[in-house]
Amino acid sequence: MICFNSDYTEGCHPAILEKLEATNMEQTEGYGEDAYCKEAAEKIKKACGAPQAEVHFLVGGTQTNVTVISAALKHYQGVITAKTGHIHVHETGALEACGHKCLAIDTRDGKLTAKEVADFVDAHFADESFEHMVQPRMVYISNPTELGTIYRKEELKALYQVCRERGMYLFLDGARLGYGLTCSENDLELSDIAAYTDVFYIGGTKVGALFGEAVVITNDALKTDFRYNIKQRGGMLAKGRLLGLQFSVLFEENLYFKIAAHGAALAEKLKKELTDMGVTFYVDSPTNQQFPILPDEILEKLKEEYRFSYQARIDEKNSAVRFCTSWATREENVNALLEKMKTLLGQY
Amino acid sequence: MICFNSDYTEGCHPAILEKLEATNMEQTEGYGEDAYCKEAAEKIKKACGAPQAEVHFLVGGTQTNVTVISAALKHYQGVITAKTGHIHVHETGALEACGHKCLAIDTRDGKLTAKEVADFVDAHFADESFEHMVQPRMVYISNPTELGTIYRKEELKALYQVCRERGMYLFLDGARLGYGLTCSENDLELSDIAAYTDVFYIGGTKVGALFGEAVVITNDALKTDFRYNIKQRGGMLAKGRLLGLQFSVLFEENLYFKIAAHGAALAEKLKKELTDMGVTFYVDSPTNQQFPILPDEILEKLKEEYRFSYQARIDEKNSAVRFCTSWATREENVNALLEKMKTLLGQY
Amino acid sequence: MICFNSDYTEGCHPAILEKLEATNMEQTEGYGEDAYCKEAAEKIKKACGAPQAEVHFLVGGTQTNVTVISAALKHYQGVITAKTGHIHVHETGALEACGHKCLAIDTRDGKLTAKEVADFVDAHFADESFEHMVQPRMVYISNPTELGTIYRKEELKALYQVCRERGMYLFLDGARLGYGLTCSENDLELSDIAAYTDVFYIGGTKVGALFGEAVVITNDALKTDFRYNIKQRGGMLAKGRLLGLQFSVLFEENLYFKIAAHGAALAEKLKKELTDMGVTFYVDSPTNQQFPILPDEILEKLKEEYRFSYQARIDEKNSAVRFCTSWATREENVNALLEKMKTLLGQY
Amino acid sequence: MICFNSDYTEGCHPAILEKLEATNMEQTEGYGEDAYCKEAAEKIKKACGAPQAEVHFLVGGTQTNVTVISAALKHYQGVITAKTGHIHVHETGALEACGHKCLAIDTRDGKLTAKEVADFVDAHFADESFEHMVQPRMVYISNPTELGTIYRKEELKALYQVCRERGMYLFLDGARLGYGLTCSENDLELSDIAAYTDVFYIGGTKVGALFGEAVVITNDALKTDFRYNIKQRGGMLAKGRLLGLQFSVLFEENLYFKIAAHGAALAEKLKKELTDMGVTFYVDSPTNQQFPILPDEILEKLKEEYRFSYQARIDEKNSAVRFCTSWATREENVNALLEKMKTLLGQY
Repeated sequence: MICFNSDYTEGCHPAILEKLEATNMEQTEGYGEDAYCKEAAEKIKKACGAPQAEVHFLVGGTQTNVTVISAALKHYQGVITAKTGHIHVHETGALEACGHKCLAIDTRDGKLTAKEVADFVDAHFADESFEHMVQPRMVYISNPTELGTIYRKEELKALYQVCRERGMYLFLDGARLGYGLTCSENDLELSDIAAYTDVFYIGGTKVGALFGEAVVITNDALKTDFRYNIKQRGGMLAKGRLLGLQFSVLFEENLYFKIAAHGAALAEKLKKELTDMGVTFYVDSPTNQQFPILPDEILEKLKEEYRFSYQARIDEKNSAVRFCTSWATREENVNALLEKMKTLLGQY
Repeated sequence: MICFNSDYTEGCHPAILEKLEATNMEQTEGYGEDAYCKEAAEKIKKACGAPQAEVHFLVGGTQTNVTVISAALKHYQGVITAKTGHIHVHETGALEACGHKCLAIDTRDGKLTAKEVADFVDAHFADESFEHMVQPRMVYISNPTELGTIYRKEELKALYQVCRERGMYLFLDGARLGYGLTCSENDLELSDIAAYTDVFYIGGTKVGALFGEAVVITNDALKTDFRYNIKQRGGMLAKGRLLGLQFSVLFEENLYFKIAAHGAALAEKLKKELTDMGVTFYVDSPTNQQFPILPDEILEKLKEEYRFSYQARIDEKNSAVRFCTSWATREENVNALLEKMKTLLGQY
Repeated sequence: MICFNSDYTEGCHPAILEKLEATNMEQTEGYGEDAYCKEAAEKIKKACGAPQAEVHFLVGGTQTNVTVISAALKHYQGVITAKTGHIHVHETGALEACGHKCLAIDTRDGKLTAKEVADFVDAHFADESFEHMVQPRMVYISNPTELGTIYRKEELKALYQVCRERGMYLFLDGARLGYGLTCSENDLELSDIAAYTDVFYIGGTKVGALFGEAVVITNDALKTDFRYNIKQRGGMLAKGRLLGLQFSVLFEENLYFKIAAHGAALAEKLKKELTDMGVTFYVDSPTNQQFPILPDEILEKLKEEYRFSYQARIDEKNSAVRFCTSWATREENVNALLEKMKTLLGQY
Repeated sequence: MICFNSDYTEGCHPAILEKLEATNMEQTEGYGEDAYCKEAAEKIKKACGAPQAEVHFLVGGTQTNVTVISAALKHYQGVITAKTGHIHVHETGALEACGHKCLAIDTRDGKLTAKEVADFVDAHFADESFEHMVQPRMVYISNPTELGTIYRKEELKALYQVCRERGMYLFLDGARLGYGLTCSENDLELSDIAAYTDVFYIGGTKVGALFGEAVVITNDALKTDFRYNIKQRGGMLAKGRLLGLQFSVLFEENLYFKIAAHGAALAEKLKKELTDMGVTFYVDSPTNQQFPILPDEILEKLKEEYRFSYQARIDEKNSAVRFCTSWATREENVNALLEKMKTLLGQY
């Protein structure tokens, strides 16, 4: 069984395991105050062109989202998100469990526009009973989004501008950031993301690490006491160096981007060749998640050899599914999958 | 200035003030354990035909919704609500502040159907990553809804049936219950509501009381330790007798329904006569909230003498607004309003 | 049965009922934005000598404590309180339910000293794992305390000074404030309390009102968006004017203090005469709660005619109990109680 | 600098790294549903003699405590803990942030007795205003405790019995369980712990793993929907197999206990030899945390070469400090430390 159902099916890039082994019996400070965390933070700040930023390492995405958002908001404030946003749909209400409401906006492609955000916030403050509603105070986006789509530099700048004008924070969830920044349609650099958000994170779990997300805080207001928040939300790893070590390896000689580019390229190949076969897509994703629409009959046969995830029913006979590539995907597996699809589609 | 902007602009029915005065210097137990609360509870249970029910008195609606819902749910469970539901829109995230997510369903008229609920719940458990999503465990409806619409007996029974089959609680917010049960389109009785919900409340604040909501719990599972929940959510009034006294008056000789019928009848008059003038409505409400669509120009002139609330923009020149009647509305004020509108519409 | 078990056994001062009646059918704005609330706020600011203060009206004490404290704190911050503090013991964890920890300090008499607070806070920041502990950010005191004791002006000033120096808020719970400020040992004025706290409240429920607590915020940082917090915590009364009306009556011609002085004086009488009979006390309270230590045998007999509350077992044969007086206590009842005790003690 | 300041200064047992490497490029299911997690769960259930238990793997201790406790409690319920309990002191209020109060009991040695718990719970329900207080519903203990002390089998059985009789859950935090079960004073086996608690966890982070805690649930009532809770509290690791792999290695051929015994034995050596030197201890700990009381002057000199943690000031010239050993501690380092202390004490 070959797995394309997610981008966290394998362990980590071998260089990370090597590093873990080489340093295993060293004694270090706990809770992220060791030299490896400091080293990794420096590398990341440099890669972001943000020497004043604060970098923290957390274990997983849900934890990171909850920690960042609840650290930024007061009790009566909420976060604007696309209706498909991970925090709104796939975190078992972790954010609400910490007291904050997701203010969900319907979108076509998982992206929020500057205008949508501006209209939402302006409508809140124009409403005479505004104090009876959750106050919007942060915007949560992900890049790539849950649907694989990405923000153009102009779109991100416009969102940031709208947030600035309205006293809102902009938070970018970069669980799959590598695949976004290395796909061919991308025009953003890491430094743009640092410049046009207040806080964001660089996902390790899905891009070469065993686990780990690096939070980059550029807005001073969000830096205060951030470690209390990490601890309270259960994200302060005792052996924090494990996170520092991994990000230090990933940000050595651009490794993070090199391995992400591999995953992104294989997704583009998958997309292009499926398109050539006449397959259409649920959403036009340029990144490592591809959502082809295929006949249920073919999907049943594919399942015998491949694992992928179900996205949505399109009509009585067709469904959208999701195939993920990653840093660990082997090109021969993509080729075999394409071959198989070609055969099945030919017979259909 | 004549107010039609809400149904809580006046104090209370005079019989309540009389009772408060007559009993003012009596000494009673605190926190709802006095004889008046017991008396009122008995009257309500009788009116509901539910001798086994438990009745508790709380001060206001938001508090009541939060107390009931959070008492019923575990941390990872949420409540299904219409997207227009009061808990989702107008309680400043009080429920999320207690840790629970609103699972919002888009509706046309503020009402949830049995099928919508069944589909939502079934889709949750059919999803392979169901544990990554908030578990639906309660359905919240209001009758009348925020849009003034009401449930037919068959609709409520169907909802209750769907909830029974799926292990869900059905909670009915009756902040304006009197106006629903006394409007001419209604086919529900208080005993039906007790029979086809697990818990509901009878609104006093908007129907003749100074304040107060009577929670009626018919499902045993929800009775356990309910008073701890009331206290924790700040709803346990020290001089609890104030609540008992008010509901005891309201449920003496059917007063609650008599005064509600007054409000409902004036709304029907308003609706009928506006319809006769050619006015259309944002939603077809049979109860004490009416949502006519009127030219902005006319609304500006009405504002000089009348207070009403803004609902939604319809097009460049027209808006939907809300007029509320209540137990306290004077018929002559409705007549004058209609007269004024007729004149303004004639000149338009 | 004569009740001395609490200070909320009766309704309200007759002048309040009169005012409710006189204004009953007036139409006003909801949610505390009516003219009566404004009027009452002005009177209170004047009485406090604090023209820049913000005054809000809430329904009850638990709700008020939760609203004020959670509005002031971030998620990882907690509130220092005496171990006997109402928020720590008698609010069913309302504060923790909103996410905040009580940082409890053992006390002899229910009062916190400036030194205790300073030591606690300094120890927190001196601890190398301070980020693993809840950050102290507010001090909660009550005056009178749960044990009836009161703060001297110098003590309050010292506490405030310690808070200022450490970036902490000082919050005073004045549920029984009237009885504290009118007892003969008191040297504080309302204006001192406004001057030496960041926020406090004037209790109405126990001092002449049907219900209601007036929050006075003097620190600008705590004023921002306070109404969102009130709404979220369920404290925004629809007919907010009921609160405004009551406090407007209570702060007309010093009524609040006049009626409180009555309750305080009767407690002093009770204390003095019991002392003369040789009775000792659990704590030396100068206010309306008195905690005599009496033989269980006598308490059993007293129970036949009087209601009081149990405080603590002293030894095998003696217990401390609590007798409360209030604005509504009739002197003849105090006299009869004293007579009865004298007889019982004489026979013992 | 040699570190004795904690038991998480090194990486992991080499066998774990080997296993990670050997399986690195395998594709597995995410979120703990892989074969390695199943295998590890089976081994643990066998080691516990608890075939009906449910085993879940989480990343860290704070997260585990919060997840277990909040899964077990309703909103108005709290958890009894020693005042020194980790949840009460060192988790930045993580539990309160989820809405639950710690009901702290003062102890001499970090242990709760059956009688203390029984008295606390009985006093709660005997109090007439019990609904105004947090309802105790779970008892949290750790073994070893924060002070290194351990429970005797009879003590644990008695606690469990008290909990059974009062409808309370007993939860044992086993962050350092290995060091407790392998010290020479211990008379508990893993199967006793499974038998006399409702839920407990086996700590990996401090006993040979990179990270990870294995929760063992024996009470059926606590099994329901536990994975929703894990996800909501941020503890569901995407590459869950990392946890399964580690515990599978640790529970192969008793490795967990073998390596823990090493740490426990070195602590006993440290304790014995310091005692021989005339050193006294803050608490009589039989496990891997030792709390000698030493002159500040000597501690200053020790700090030049050794890292240890500060516990408490004893008097003007002496402090209690903490030295931890672990699976990773090298005997030669303990010897050198003892040698150094001997010299310093000789000169003192």
